[in-house]
Amino acid sequence: MKVVRTIKEMHKLRQSELIKTVGFVPTMGYLHEGHTSLMNKAATENDLVVASIFVNPLQFGPNEDYDTYPRDELRDQRIAKENGVDILFLPDATEMYPQRMNVTLSISKRTNVLCGAKRSGHFAGVITVLTKLFNIVQPTTAYFGLKDAQQVAVVDSLIADLNIPVTLIGEATVREADGLAKSSRNVYLSTAERAEATKLYDALLYGLNLFKNGQQPNEHLITSVREFLQDQVSGSIDYVNLLSYPDLEPVTENSEQMILAVAVNFEHARLIDNIIFDNSGTIVNTITF
Amino acid sequence: MKVVRTIKEMHKLRQSELIKTVGFVPTMGYLHEGHTSLMNKAATENDLVVASIFVNPLQFGPNEDYDTYPRDELRDQRIAKENGVDILFLPDATEMYPQRMNVTLSISKRTNVLCGAKRSGHFAGVITVLTKLFNIVQPTTAYFGLKDAQQVAVVDSLIADLNIPVTLIGEATVREADGLAKSSRNVYLSTAERAEATKLYDALLYGLNLFKNGQQPNEHLITSVREFLQDQVSGSIDYVNLLSYPDLEPVTENSEQMILAVAVNFEHARLIDNIIFDNSGTIVNTITF
Repeated sequence: MKVVRTIKEMHKLRQSELIKTVGFVPTMGYLHEGHTSLMNKAATENDLVVASIFVNPLQFGPNEDYDTYPRDELRDQRIAKENGVDILFLPDATEMYPQRMNVTLSISKRTNVLCGAKRSGHFAGVITVLTKLFNIVQPTTAYFGLKDAQQVAVVDSLIADLNIPVTLIGEATVREADGLAKSSRNVYLSTAERAEATKLYDALLYGLNLFKNGQQPNEHLITSVREFLQDQVSGSIDYVNLLSYPDLEPVTENSEQMILAVAVNFEHARLIDNIIFDNSGTIVNTITF
Repeated sequence: MKVVRTIKEMHKLRQSELIKTVGFVPTMGYLHEGHTSLMNKAATENDLVVASIFVNPLQFGPNEDYDTYPRDELRDQRIAKENGVDILFLPDATEMYPQRMNVTLSISKRTNVLCGAKRSGHFAGVITVLTKLFNIVQPTTAYFGLKDAQQVAVVDSLIADLNIPVTLIGEATVREADGLAKSSRNVYLSTAERAEATKLYDALLYGLNLFKNGQQPNEHLITSVREFLQDQVSGSIDYVNLLSYPDLEPVTENSEQMILAVAVNFEHARLIDNIIFDNSGTIVNTITF
């Protein structure tokens, strides 16, 4: 009989029996290059690629766009197939939530800033569906886009706290040629808004440049980015913030990585964008947690 | 590419790749025949048997016996080894809770009766540690003793809600020759209390007999059992209850299984016991959920 005292060794023992590595790309569908880049990366790195498409009602607030969230299942199936997905998990809401949940998950840290500040319950819904999906799919590695960097930070905490046997990879945001971060919600934008939307990324690069030129990572820098953005977009700014990553705490001299993040409410779409960089100002593209 | 729409099929697909079945017996140690019967059953039914010993601080209330809970690690290791355990997972509290949990789990149904009524937070602690242990050990089947029948009902709900890929088996309570349910806490009893402790099981069988003889499964039956017990023990009765199992709701004519459960506070130990029977009055020994 073997006595094991650490979680790491227990995970290692169990992993030694796996015959396949399984890469998992959970999505809400309406697939774009942000998703397919994750699928292709998963296909390169794993024996089996599972993707899921599930618009999770639990993570939408009562006044959010659950009912109108863009869906195109047939197109998505074709795209997934063309991008290395072996198994596409496509449950309906009754399959995932056959009855009111008796067990509820909640999360405190990393959630009361950025998108979490205004979207009460959003991340509780995210960790609930992901805990279920991880148990359903049992992946060895899960791939997320860093466009939703706060979500990735929350998933990192979920995996750590519940000892979920999965490696988390955050992948660089995929952008249009003009810099706009790819997002399923971009289809909501009017032509004028679409033109302005590129300014989110411009503002992030403007902030990074200030930092590289010696500006301290403090309120002044945040205000400068906010002012830059305010001048360029008609939408209302929800937030501009600079925080340590992935802890999402105020930046201190000990912060090794930080995130500069913005959110703008346009008339028909709320857009978010961010860049993560180290304390030399180098952008971080891939993070393995 | 395969499109999968049900959780059952997804689990089946993933299970087809497993090379080993893993039986898991989570315990708090101080092993007795209640535990070893689970270990031996797991050894018969699986390629690999993992047991864990962890006295989980999260499931003890501030005035409960966490500090004094009986522990004997060397003896436990010998017993586990002799009873078919291949891997014994023996983490310390820092390994399981390196920092304050950011993610918290809670549960509402099946917990506000019996032991849950007075032990606030107990079952939240139980489902938290078991979610962690299931992720750490990744068993295919988990074995629990039905002496903690409410715990088994709670774990059943946890597994269902979070889609944990494990089969749950509840095994018959193991008893001393005189009927006392085996429990690590029996060591706390004085000689006089030990003699009285057999009356818990007597009271359960008395209640079952009333049911078999035509007494309706209602308050009258519960009161009769309570009176029987009150006459026989010096300890104070915490509860006597008859509920549907595993839902732990009031018994109705649709209830297929019910549990008659008692808890008595002796001076140095709180003892619990129960029997589960179907509506013909036949005792249910093993339940596969």
